[in-house]
Amino acid sequence: MVYNKVEQITMIHGGQLQEAKRQFPHAVMPWIDLSTGINPYAYPFVPISSERWAELPNMQDEENLRKIAAIAYGVRDENYAAAAPGTQILISLLPYIFQAKQVCILCPTYMEHIKTWQQAGVKVYQVKSLEALMRFGSQEQTIGVVCNPNNPDGRLFSIEQIKEALVHFGQFNNHFVVDEAFMDFEGQGVGKLLPHPFLTILRSFGKTYGLAGVRLGFVLSNSDHIQKIRQMLGPWAVSGAALQISQQALQDDAWFLQSQQQLARQVKQLDQLFLRYGCKVIGGTHLFRLIEYIKAQELWSYLANHGIWVRKFDYNNQWLRFGLSHHQEWDRVQKVIQGYFELSC
Amino acid sequence: MVYNKVEQITMIHGGQLQEAKRQFPHAVMPWIDLSTGINPYAYPFVPISSERWAELPNMQDEENLRKIAAIAYGVRDENYAAAAPGTQILISLLPYIFQAKQVCILCPTYMEHIKTWQQAGVKVYQVKSLEALMRFGSQEQTIGVVCNPNNPDGRLFSIEQIKEALVHFGQFNNHFVVDEAFMDFEGQGVGKLLPHPFLTILRSFGKTYGLAGVRLGFVLSNSDHIQKIRQMLGPWAVSGAALQISQQALQDDAWFLQSQQQLARQVKQLDQLFLRYGCKVIGGTHLFRLIEYIKAQELWSYLANHGIWVRKFDYNNQWLRFGLSHHQEWDRVQKVIQGYFELSC
Repeated sequence: MVYNKVEQITMIHGGQLQEAKRQFPHAVMPWIDLSTGINPYAYPFVPISSERWAELPNMQDEENLRKIAAIAYGVRDENYAAAAPGTQILISLLPYIFQAKQVCILCPTYMEHIKTWQQAGVKVYQVKSLEALMRFGSQEQTIGVVCNPNNPDGRLFSIEQIKEALVHFGQFNNHFVVDEAFMDFEGQGVGKLLPHPFLTILRSFGKTYGLAGVRLGFVLSNSDHIQKIRQMLGPWAVSGAALQISQQALQDDAWFLQSQQQLARQVKQLDQLFLRYGCKVIGGTHLFRLIEYIKAQELWSYLANHGIWVRKFDYNNQWLRFGLSHHQEWDRVQKVIQGYFELSC
Repeated sequence: MVYNKVEQITMIHGGQLQEAKRQFPHAVMPWIDLSTGINPYAYPFVPISSERWAELPNMQDEENLRKIAAIAYGVRDENYAAAAPGTQILISLLPYIFQAKQVCILCPTYMEHIKTWQQAGVKVYQVKSLEALMRFGSQEQTIGVVCNPNNPDGRLFSIEQIKEALVHFGQFNNHFVVDEAFMDFEGQGVGKLLPHPFLTILRSFGKTYGLAGVRLGFVLSNSDHIQKIRQMLGPWAVSGAALQISQQALQDDAWFLQSQQQLARQVKQLDQLFLRYGCKVIGGTHLFRLIEYIKAQELWSYLANHGIWVRKFDYNNQWLRFGLSHHQEWDRVQKVIQGYFELSC
């Protein structure tokens, strides 16, 4: 069985531009932050009313949001959906939601999944294929975790593949967690498999709607687990602003389609640019692209000196992940990338 | 030993005005919601920038907020303070932060303290005096909980009294939780006793600053527990808006003093009005008053029919709790209360 028990990890997150400013004080200004996978087109929500700020979040609004989320994520009804102040807090609480001796995670992926279980004292194994992950499904008290589509490479499993993995875990009463943080623009998630006694799904609001500061995420699961998670979060976990914005946004199909099309065009532009210069585009989603390039570290520094902040990875020095820019920034992004390759070739 | 094991509780929360509208569809409009203990004077914060909504909350801002909170709450430094999306989520997570066989709570008090432990399967005992609570301190794996000042009656223990209770728990390695959600306007909390291996304190932002929809609360404890709680919440638990507003508000001493004085004047007005009509004012804080009146249920209905929504209690049918109104609403509140007593006398 091919696996590595993860002993220790270093966390590098996107979106911390003060680190860019510290490391590159003489960079070309203003900074363009492409280090995250957040939609550069923020959803244009109605301004937050003073009541929303002043009053406790309305419980009926939260019920309504759960109904809207169930529809948006293809889940039968709101008994299988709960809202939380961000997907991250749900990830951080997973070890307290599920009792487990060990967890097996399909890697490389979003590092917080590894960190959260380690911090809770649970043994973490990382595997490199869905098949290897499935083999863990028969071990005692084991949780399986897969990000689908994956971050940073965008690898996407079909519903049938997830379903097969789920069978391997469920038949031994082991739980399977699918983090669909980047699924919205990619297609259908596995919400329609719910209710299922051993399946839990995470969905992110802030990435898709370009509103990461709002803090809103969802968990989809069977009603027992949803009840437990709602008890752990308590009433009013989601802010009044998040309730207002998300009820509007999750029902706005026109905005969603327009944003998806705009991002698809820009993904194509970005991929073509890298291909032209001989970089390999490993994959990605509508919200980020992963490229492989032998001198990735050099390119990363060049970009940073020119005020463009992208993600590098301590576990692979030939990888860089690019978030999508606002189209108004594309000219500058394109010129800097071209500048690097024309200077270095 | 005088105590009751709590078997089951009914939760009635303030601030759910839709319930008022449902029960009293023909009430005088607009509704005045005095069912919560939220400052009617919302802190006038600088509008939230588009970056705050779009980007992940800035980690340095959260560090800065922890420093500001440590100063505001009289704690030595930020290693003993963590921010969360509301105090409520901290209450709901208490059974996962502390391993306990049983919990002993000084009652009557904020019911969520009872509910959270019951839901997690921990035995809950309620006692009626600090002395009775202290006697539980010597029992195995027991958590003590006290709200100070208390909700709904405003009973306030001195730092010395809390310190004595803490000794009773700490000497048997039992943890003591002090919920200081309503302490801000009342005086000093017990933050200065930190770091202490067995003391954890909760503080609320939204009540004091009239911004309950923002969702922000703090936990103060020793650095080990703070680290554990921060891991359970994960990064970015607090929204960008909450970070921005609270950094401004918690340092604004002028606003705080002005609000405190305004509320003190209004508390006096309200108390005098009830005393004039022979109601007993049991106590309260700058943010709510608890009155005892033999026909409290009748008064409650009268107020509701006249569009004023206050808290009643299923465990005491002679109690009503009044939140403070905005001074612009005082004339109407006063006239309705006068109207009731002049009609019924």
